[in-house]
Amino acid sequence: MRSINNKVVVIGAGMVGAAVVDAMLSLCLVSEIAVIDRNVQRAEGVALDASHTTSFAYSPNVHVHAGTFADCADAQIVVIAAGTSVQPGKVVHDRLSLAASNAAVIRDTMAEICPYTTDAVLIVVSNPVDIVTYVAQNEFNYPRDHIIGTGTLLDTARLRRLIAEEYAVDTKNVHGYILGEHGDTAFAVWSMVSIAGVSLPDAARIFRRPVHLDREALVREVRQAGYHIVQLKGYTNAGVANSVGRIAKAVMLHERSVLPVSTTLTGEYGIHDVALSLPCVITDQGIGQVLEIPLSPEEQEQMHQCAERLHTVLQQLDILPSGH
Amino acid sequence: MRSINNKVVVIGAGMVGAAVVDAMLSLCLVSEIAVIDRNVQRAEGVALDASHTTSFAYSPNVHVHAGTFADCADAQIVVIAAGTSVQPGKVVHDRLSLAASNAAVIRDTMAEICPYTTDAVLIVVSNPVDIVTYVAQNEFNYPRDHIIGTGTLLDTARLRRLIAEEYAVDTKNVHGYILGEHGDTAFAVWSMVSIAGVSLPDAARIFRRPVHLDREALVREVRQAGYHIVQLKGYTNAGVANSVGRIAKAVMLHERSVLPVSTTLTGEYGIHDVALSLPCVITDQGIGQVLEIPLSPEEQEQMHQCAERLHTVLQQLDILPSGH
Amino acid sequence: MRSINNKVVVIGAGMVGAAVVDAMLSLCLVSEIAVIDRNVQRAEGVALDASHTTSFAYSPNVHVHAGTFADCADAQIVVIAAGTSVQPGKVVHDRLSLAASNAAVIRDTMAEICPYTTDAVLIVVSNPVDIVTYVAQNEFNYPRDHIIGTGTLLDTARLRRLIAEEYAVDTKNVHGYILGEHGDTAFAVWSMVSIAGVSLPDAARIFRRPVHLDREALVREVRQAGYHIVQLKGYTNAGVANSVGRIAKAVMLHERSVLPVSTTLTGEYGIHDVALSLPCVITDQGIGQVLEIPLSPEEQEQMHQCAERLHTVLQQLDILPSGH
Amino acid sequence: MRSINNKVVVIGAGMVGAAVVDAMLSLCLVSEIAVIDRNVQRAEGVALDASHTTSFAYSPNVHVHAGTFADCADAQIVVIAAGTSVQPGKVVHDRLSLAASNAAVIRDTMAEICPYTTDAVLIVVSNPVDIVTYVAQNEFNYPRDHIIGTGTLLDTARLRRLIAEEYAVDTKNVHGYILGEHGDTAFAVWSMVSIAGVSLPDAARIFRRPVHLDREALVREVRQAGYHIVQLKGYTNAGVANSVGRIAKAVMLHERSVLPVSTTLTGEYGIHDVALSLPCVITDQGIGQVLEIPLSPEEQEQMHQCAERLHTVLQQLDILPSGH
Repeated sequence: MRSINNKVVVIGAGMVGAAVVDAMLSLCLVSEIAVIDRNVQRAEGVALDASHTTSFAYSPNVHVHAGTFADCADAQIVVIAAGTSVQPGKVVHDRLSLAASNAAVIRDTMAEICPYTTDAVLIVVSNPVDIVTYVAQNEFNYPRDHIIGTGTLLDTARLRRLIAEEYAVDTKNVHGYILGEHGDTAFAVWSMVSIAGVSLPDAARIFRRPVHLDREALVREVRQAGYHIVQLKGYTNAGVANSVGRIAKAVMLHERSVLPVSTTLTGEYGIHDVALSLPCVITDQGIGQVLEIPLSPEEQEQMHQCAERLHTVLQQLDILPSGH
Repeated sequence: MRSINNKVVVIGAGMVGAAVVDAMLSLCLVSEIAVIDRNVQRAEGVALDASHTTSFAYSPNVHVHAGTFADCADAQIVVIAAGTSVQPGKVVHDRLSLAASNAAVIRDTMAEICPYTTDAVLIVVSNPVDIVTYVAQNEFNYPRDHIIGTGTLLDTARLRRLIAEEYAVDTKNVHGYILGEHGDTAFAVWSMVSIAGVSLPDAARIFRRPVHLDREALVREVRQAGYHIVQLKGYTNAGVANSVGRIAKAVMLHERSVLPVSTTLTGEYGIHDVALSLPCVITDQGIGQVLEIPLSPEEQEQMHQCAERLHTVLQQLDILPSGH
Repeated sequence: MRSINNKVVVIGAGMVGAAVVDAMLSLCLVSEIAVIDRNVQRAEGVALDASHTTSFAYSPNVHVHAGTFADCADAQIVVIAAGTSVQPGKVVHDRLSLAASNAAVIRDTMAEICPYTTDAVLIVVSNPVDIVTYVAQNEFNYPRDHIIGTGTLLDTARLRRLIAEEYAVDTKNVHGYILGEHGDTAFAVWSMVSIAGVSLPDAARIFRRPVHLDREALVREVRQAGYHIVQLKGYTNAGVANSVGRIAKAVMLHERSVLPVSTTLTGEYGIHDVALSLPCVITDQGIGQVLEIPLSPEEQEQMHQCAERLHTVLQQLDILPSGH
Repeated sequence: MRSINNKVVVIGAGMVGAAVVDAMLSLCLVSEIAVIDRNVQRAEGVALDASHTTSFAYSPNVHVHAGTFADCADAQIVVIAAGTSVQPGKVVHDRLSLAASNAAVIRDTMAEICPYTTDAVLIVVSNPVDIVTYVAQNEFNYPRDHIIGTGTLLDTARLRRLIAEEYAVDTKNVHGYILGEHGDTAFAVWSMVSIAGVSLPDAARIFRRPVHLDREALVREVRQAGYHIVQLKGYTNAGVANSVGRIAKAVMLHERSVLPVSTTLTGEYGIHDVALSLPCVITDQGIGQVLEIPLSPEEQEQMHQCAERLHTVLQQLDILPSGH
């Protein structure tokens, strides 16, 4: 089959999937978007609403339509935003049941995709993203490097935004990562944070801001940002949809951009059999390289805590054998 | 007060307002967005979610924040997306109560805006947009040309999209307008429809498509597209948010683009005292010119039906005196 | 060979080729650009200067480099801007020698491309573009629909700009084509010109401008715009480079946009064996359809004059046999 | 006078000025561009060629025209690209005569601008940019922070590009600055260079590239890149034009981006009375803050060498008194 240039499939037409469709359209480098949902009407609604925007000046003539898994056959990118989301008011210990539920969803989804393609780059959004990514990468015969979990890319964006506001600079001038689990054990690599090249200890003086950065409070704010937004507006979608957009652009333009995304580790920091976020080089094939960046002993310890916690979840869900 | 370049205020943080914020961000020509909602938490949630997207490469460092009406003072554009929306399953005769409710909302909103500015261009989205626009333009001392109702811009986009699909061409090559009421009496100016300059009677032959365009069915589909999307996905937002984005870009870049938008007529086709959509030249001051384009007798008749219907609503709501 | 997504080759690193590289970069949907020139240093200089722009925020990480014809093997688009240009002060009867010279250049160029690909879409810029396009489409075993001459796309842009200024509207609201030869016999399809759907006879009244459009003067200005710019600034490049950008975007996003471009006619209006511009549907395969739009008798006459003139040149250059 | 939103004036219609016009257009956030040149025809040619591009889909309806200094009155940004450029084959000791010549040009230019505005942000491109910027900032009553010399922004872009290629990553992931003089004494702040947060000593290992970075050779390549491109293609324009575009976007969107640009120092590192490049926070008012970033002793020494050298030139040209 002739591969169609810049074709994207979005699986899941809920709040996140709909926002992903919009983000894909605003990239202006997609030629076709197929929307898939178990609720076919919802997929049609999302596609229909989005398709009307293509008539406006400045919008490319993208073919947006409800599709089927057969659309994956000639897609360059497949975004998986299917499954249940965190709901307002739901407490944290629901995360395990969310994991169980969405592990089932990703299995169904991968089983539907695999007959049609093993070439497309898959971007996994469904939460808990590290668990879902692990299942996608390890239970199917799909090339592992073609699968990318959005991981802590959004957490990293949130950290940079918060720091940028403290020093009143462009957030794109803030460097630093949130790594590990996309969730409660995510941690900041403080040893790498800099603002326009200025390290944190120097920053208040250089930028002349009376800032006393409370690092723990910042990380707490980042970890809880998702829950916080859900409580405030009832759902989250803009941030994560644009995370997907960022990854998709790096893939479609083969940018070799370094982004913190989730993938199964194969010995980095001595960690195996778990997916979590490290900085990765993104290419048109997906994850071109996993970067085992230098971490402080404390940061390494945090990385291992993430790994253990995720390990436990994988075992609780029988994704990994208990004795593993 | 120093006017801030390219600052936008979005009033209303529901599904539409949130999508407007996203559309404004994807324009890449806004420096600041203030989000206002009676539900302050919701405004904060929308602003927070959107603000995180500014950290991604390719996103300008826009200052997105929850605001107050004082933010209108130095805004260039204020988008009014407050009020109730059409709900799934609600029947058509609810439109009058929607009109009553949102007429009250626009009065409150204008009363809040006017103390701060009469310079900003206001883009009115709330439905029924022609009624709401009329109230905004006529009950306050705000320059009428600075107020733009989104009107049939989205209906027009929908018509062009539908026709484009019939002839398999870029929707931006389809010309033609839906004019009049944004709603049940909207009508197509068929006498002006062309595809890449080819008139409809020639199109099937020239584009070699076995198309027999059912004009009435097309207009029906356009009129009901909003309801249809609400039924399918539970709400509409992408299309209308991008309509606002299109208008905003024309304003911010002083493009003099011709767009069908809603404004109070002052004698065009002999019509007074009602707001409905005609093609207008959009400038940095809002509506630079209302174009009284040539219409066929039938189209003029449809225009008058729109005006009468809207008149009736304005009278029922005591916005116009009954004997008017 | 794995086809590289969105790779472009630009042949010719003169003023036009350099501007094409810049225009391709500003599209933000190209992943790689290879620049080829007989003067290898010039190709390197153009690539080097352009490559530095990729470091700026908002610029994708495009791989810009001097290349060889082997780069065509995995390219999606090849732009041919090689050969001599019109020089300031040169008189019109030099056009025949320009034609002879660039006919030789296109033959050399096609002979270099064909061993590597017959899949890429070729965009021909070199002048006289109708002659050069004819040679490319008819003397090689390259799929004819994959070859697009920029033709009167730029002339059309010029016409629309001039009319837009008369009526003080967005040039994108002006519809109409310049067709035929890109050069001295180009003609406007006045029967199709409209402004936001308003026909020319109505326009002055509707837009309230005291305009008395001198159609012959306008067409003369369009025909001479190229020469005029060469006299004023010494070269032309911005307009034509952006014509190429427009075509490239339509190809890369498979937009099915209707653009007036040059291609060999196969019986349209009874014309054969000559390349000139008609409105064409542009797809990811190149020219998806040639539209034989309705023309007035006068316009048909002008079309035949173009064809005859181009025929004569093709015969004078022995591209067509004299008795043809 | 009503200030026109996003209006830009470009002074100088040579190769650089023309490329600046194109870069401004491709930003898609400019509403009007006035082009000024002593050679009025050239200004008209550049404006005319560029104006035609506004007709293409995706291009805003920018009003591009030849202008006069009166156009500065309502401009938001004025780009000064007037004066002589480095010519191919000219040797280095010509730089002093270039300085003398362009010091005269900037005096004439500022004298023309000042009667019309002291509000616009001026972006100085003319070389030697540090000398020209110094004259503009210190001999006129124009707010110093409103004047920005492009300085080492382009040199920095070049350094990042070169390093990015060594490690095969997105150049936007490379951090580091070239500071000081835009020219022969420019120096790299190696202590701040990092790649996706990884310091140079770790980079080869982390990115698994057999790179042995020759720092002196890299800096030499950056310093000579301009001359090198002039030799290869006869002129430079793409890189510097996009530097201007980057600054202009930061100004127009009030981004507070940190960019290395040239401005008169007022005691930073103990340096006075000379303009050179330090990282600066760019706001809608121009230079919001000069960052006196931590430098190694060797880097401080290089900074002082730049300052002395530029001091000498300023004295040789009698811009500063000899005893200063």
